[in-house]
Amino acid sequence: MPVIDMDGVRALGRELSNWGRWGDDDQRGTLNLITPERTAAATAAVRRGASFSLSVPADETGPYDLRTSGRFNPIHTMTRYRGDNPRYGPQDFQSSEDMLIIGTHSSTHFDALAHLWYDELLYNGRHHHDAVTSLGAARNSIQNLVTGVVSRGVLVDMPRLRGTTHLAPGTRVGPADLDEALGAAGVTPRPGDVLLLRTGTYPRERRGLEVEPGASPGLSWECARWIREHGIAAVCADNLAVEALGANPGGPMIPFHMVAIRDMGLLLGEMFDFEDLADDCAADGVHECLFMASPLNIPGGVGSPVNPIAVK
Amino acid sequence: MPVIDMDGVRALGRELSNWGRWGDDDQRGTLNLITPERTAAATAAVRRGASFSLSVPADETGPYDLRTSGRFNPIHTMTRYRGDNPRYGPQDFQSSEDMLIIGTHSSTHFDALAHLWYDELLYNGRHHHDAVTSLGAARNSIQNLVTGVVSRGVLVDMPRLRGTTHLAPGTRVGPADLDEALGAAGVTPRPGDVLLLRTGTYPRERRGLEVEPGASPGLSWECARWIREHGIAAVCADNLAVEALGANPGGPMIPFHMVAIRDMGLLLGEMFDFEDLADDCAADGVHECLFMASPLNIPGGVGSPVNPIAVK
Amino acid sequence: MPVIDMDGVRALGRELSNWGRWGDDDQRGTLNLITPERTAAATAAVRRGASFSLSVPADETGPYDLRTSGRFNPIHTMTRYRGDNPRYGPQDFQSSEDMLIIGTHSSTHFDALAHLWYDELLYNGRHHHDAVTSLGAARNSIQNLVTGVVSRGVLVDMPRLRGTTHLAPGTRVGPADLDEALGAAGVTPRPGDVLLLRTGTYPRERRGLEVEPGASPGLSWECARWIREHGIAAVCADNLAVEALGANPGGPMIPFHMVAIRDMGLLLGEMFDFEDLADDCAADGVHECLFMASPLNIPGGVGSPVNPIAVK
Amino acid sequence: MPVIDMDGVRALGRELSNWGRWGDDDQRGTLNLITPERTAAATAAVRRGASFSLSVPADETGPYDLRTSGRFNPIHTMTRYRGDNPRYGPQDFQSSEDMLIIGTHSSTHFDALAHLWYDELLYNGRHHHDAVTSLGAARNSIQNLVTGVVSRGVLVDMPRLRGTTHLAPGTRVGPADLDEALGAAGVTPRPGDVLLLRTGTYPRERRGLEVEPGASPGLSWECARWIREHGIAAVCADNLAVEALGANPGGPMIPFHMVAIRDMGLLLGEMFDFEDLADDCAADGVHECLFMASPLNIPGGVGSPVNPIAVK
Repeated sequence: MPVIDMDGVRALGRELSNWGRWGDDDQRGTLNLITPERTAAATAAVRRGASFSLSVPADETGPYDLRTSGRFNPIHTMTRYRGDNPRYGPQDFQSSEDMLIIGTHSSTHFDALAHLWYDELLYNGRHHHDAVTSLGAARNSIQNLVTGVVSRGVLVDMPRLRGTTHLAPGTRVGPADLDEALGAAGVTPRPGDVLLLRTGTYPRERRGLEVEPGASPGLSWECARWIREHGIAAVCADNLAVEALGANPGGPMIPFHMVAIRDMGLLLGEMFDFEDLADDCAADGVHECLFMASPLNIPGGVGSPVNPIAVK
Repeated sequence: MPVIDMDGVRALGRELSNWGRWGDDDQRGTLNLITPERTAAATAAVRRGASFSLSVPADETGPYDLRTSGRFNPIHTMTRYRGDNPRYGPQDFQSSEDMLIIGTHSSTHFDALAHLWYDELLYNGRHHHDAVTSLGAARNSIQNLVTGVVSRGVLVDMPRLRGTTHLAPGTRVGPADLDEALGAAGVTPRPGDVLLLRTGTYPRERRGLEVEPGASPGLSWECARWIREHGIAAVCADNLAVEALGANPGGPMIPFHMVAIRDMGLLLGEMFDFEDLADDCAADGVHECLFMASPLNIPGGVGSPVNPIAVK
Repeated sequence: MPVIDMDGVRALGRELSNWGRWGDDDQRGTLNLITPERTAAATAAVRRGASFSLSVPADETGPYDLRTSGRFNPIHTMTRYRGDNPRYGPQDFQSSEDMLIIGTHSSTHFDALAHLWYDELLYNGRHHHDAVTSLGAARNSIQNLVTGVVSRGVLVDMPRLRGTTHLAPGTRVGPADLDEALGAAGVTPRPGDVLLLRTGTYPRERRGLEVEPGASPGLSWECARWIREHGIAAVCADNLAVEALGANPGGPMIPFHMVAIRDMGLLLGEMFDFEDLADDCAADGVHECLFMASPLNIPGGVGSPVNPIAVK
Repeated sequence: MPVIDMDGVRALGRELSNWGRWGDDDQRGTLNLITPERTAAATAAVRRGASFSLSVPADETGPYDLRTSGRFNPIHTMTRYRGDNPRYGPQDFQSSEDMLIIGTHSSTHFDALAHLWYDELLYNGRHHHDAVTSLGAARNSIQNLVTGVVSRGVLVDMPRLRGTTHLAPGTRVGPADLDEALGAAGVTPRPGDVLLLRTGTYPRERRGLEVEPGASPGLSWECARWIREHGIAAVCADNLAVEALGANPGGPMIPFHMVAIRDMGLLLGEMFDFEDLADDCAADGVHECLFMASPLNIPGGVGSPVNPIAVK
């Protein structure tokens, strides 16, 4: 697949732009594709009532090191646990409390549309100076997802399609791959669908299984057009950045992100874990589910940890 | 309603106990009542596909003051926002990041079954010394809910039933009140249901509306028996503690909690906001919904912030 | 005292500027006035060896509320305390651990010279865009004080001079007041001295004593000139901002800060507590001490909590 | 040197005990040895007025990994930095703010006497159940040091004495080594002195210099007796635990800690950096200094980060 340069990103962004599509004040982007009708229709994907968590643990086992990445893994600590509660004196009951210190992009999470931009402007044409300040995102914050993302999820299990446990480092998943995978799964993508891209990489690493080091496998930037054409509302992947990393030498590092978040207003979910879901889909041959995820209610947040659920 | 003393709590606990009901190793309690069949059946509650968030903002507007309560309101802070990213040098894109510091019980949340106990033992008979340590809960942690709580939700809108905006301080909602409210709503409770108790108090306070100060309205301890009989899987309320506070003078402060969490293994959700959902239910006369909530994936957590969603 | 407008601030800044005085690369400002000779000479202020802490507790009893001020009080929490250490298994000893979450300006602290600026430039003429980023202060950080502030401290106890427990809200302490107080104390200011300004306000409030609400008493902006003339190396005060607040109607809110930090490179310490020291000085008539304070070693920090010590 | 078992620890503890020595209510332990007279006399160690920081940076470059140690390195993050202050609207000045999240034992720090105990009792015979709760240390907290540790510091530079850059892993520094080092330095230990033990290990590791992996060099448990006899008030070292680790096979892991903190009430400082000070001492042959350190004012704290200063 060809390298895309900055001008190419800009041109692709104009081509696929959703600015103004849902009004000049819109802050929800492709979430608008999940209409109430689509949400209601998605319940048909529930057959057995089996639930799957799509998250990795929000704890110190994450991939980050503040020394190199500017992100730290979540810190979970007990603050009370042996039944004492000296603030209130002796009581008939005992209780425990704990605390979480978490970067909103450091475990399974959604990106708010205020998370990323280029050429000074955010999704729907707002200048970042006014939109994202020390108080948080005044525009395009994660709170625009507060009523949840409830739609049909469709699993693209690329490693199984290729007969392997995980995609090799640097593998780019292109539009033809998506078509092939969905075709093999017997799924016809519909507007409002949430695309669940399994690469098998990060969850395997977390569990200590062997994965060759190197650039992350993921979507190629050309998938942006495919996503726009099929009316996909969100893409969630089990890698760090949805798209392939190290896959656009000489050009911008994350061209898909740039067009997807800033021009398309596309909801992206990262650091997911599809292992259990994928096993089940392989077993029963059904690759659709009711996808449900709701970010924490963080005013001004530019992301949120989330524990997405798939129900089949 | 009568005062219950510590011996009464113990007797009620024995009467309503679910210890061993789902095996000696069970850590999920009444969540077992939400069988796959119940989850699948709950999708029938979705008619229009309208979604409602049941959470309050996870930010500094919460009710806590560390000086008096031992809890602090969530702290949300931007950590990067003006597009700079000096760690990586100049780039074609800009991005922002933020952080959340949150006590797991300080905004809309679920209590893990490891959160509360009495007489040294947790739900299903484990001693707290082994079960809850500085590393977190080895038993009954919030991670037992990681595949989500997906079932039918039924709204009990007590203030509307009584023709008021919110229950007066100290009001105890008893079993007869629940029967009356559900009857008026045309809802027959089913095993696995999630009971959504609206008192109208805390969300009003948050929005700066006038609420008389005083003891919190909420469930009376006698509702524990009603909940056991009807097979309710979870109770979520828009107050600080589900049950009425200041309502058991001379006896334990929170007798319902003691029996519900420790003996019944009942899932409790607190600090919810039902204002939007309740308006909709009043408008269309339908008081059931598909309830979906998933705690963060926190190994050993004794609670978790959550943004529950109701879909009608 | 007259109101100063923005042009007046700029003119005063030029008049008192220390830019270039200690080299174009200097990041320490008036700390340069504390030469090794001054440090060595300051030990002569030690007579009895009596030590005094000049800090307020770094805990939830602070003055801040995130809802209104953008700052939160320090959060101190135990993370292990009952002797358990399950990570390491049974051991012969037991131990406890705790954690501090603290804004560097939210308790007794020093301001780094990177904390405040105007007209885009920091002390010594660096543009803030390059100097203060999401990684911290690349210039003028608190780490420039890492070898400590060790010099003579001289106490100006204004309330005692005026025969009161604390200055009335809005009281401006001017150059003549400083001269009068030092004269009465028998202290001749010397270059490199640390000026300790007692107003009596904030520590009284902290202890729950009655203080009329209102604008903070503190230095008038005209003291900047006095400080420059006398070669004062640092000013520390027992209020929130050293200078009087609400005292320059129609002009900049904190004109003294603007000139002191940005133009003079003056070290400012805030939220100090001089109550014990002042009692001792009143008792023995000696208003000088060996002042010692060292910020935490925070690379890039724009402030630091500190527990300054006075030895007499 | 011989292995000491648990009974040996108890016997040594009884032998060296300071319980009751400064009253039954004492919470300061050997800090009592730093009398005002000792503090005043220590100023004689200041000759040139040269200051040295004895701390390592309180940031992500620390040695801890939450996955294995239960401790995390300090997190320093900017929270405002580009001059915006939208909470207050446009202003004539701009400012920046930052935040520190720090375990009190995760960078250069003092241990409070409430940090460690055995056989259920803390220093001076208090039971840990009452003394250390979720609210912090009610006894023996770090706040007992709030007026600072100001005394003579004496440097023991073991690597230089042995003609090396750092002690080999597992090296035990015994009483004879201390005598030899101080003799070579021409220093006679005095009651109230702060012993500064350089091993050269941890600061070298931090700077990326080569250090053989392995058990930490440090004091042998037999030094406890030497310290008691010489009236040493505090021991600070540039390793993680003052004493040698991995040096008492088959016996308690940290026997020196157990006797020093719990029985002697000895103040311990850890993770210091003596590199600059040691270079200076080697250059001028003077191994004494005025040592000054003050923990943060943390009510109930069981430790505190600190940036200790040496003045020569």
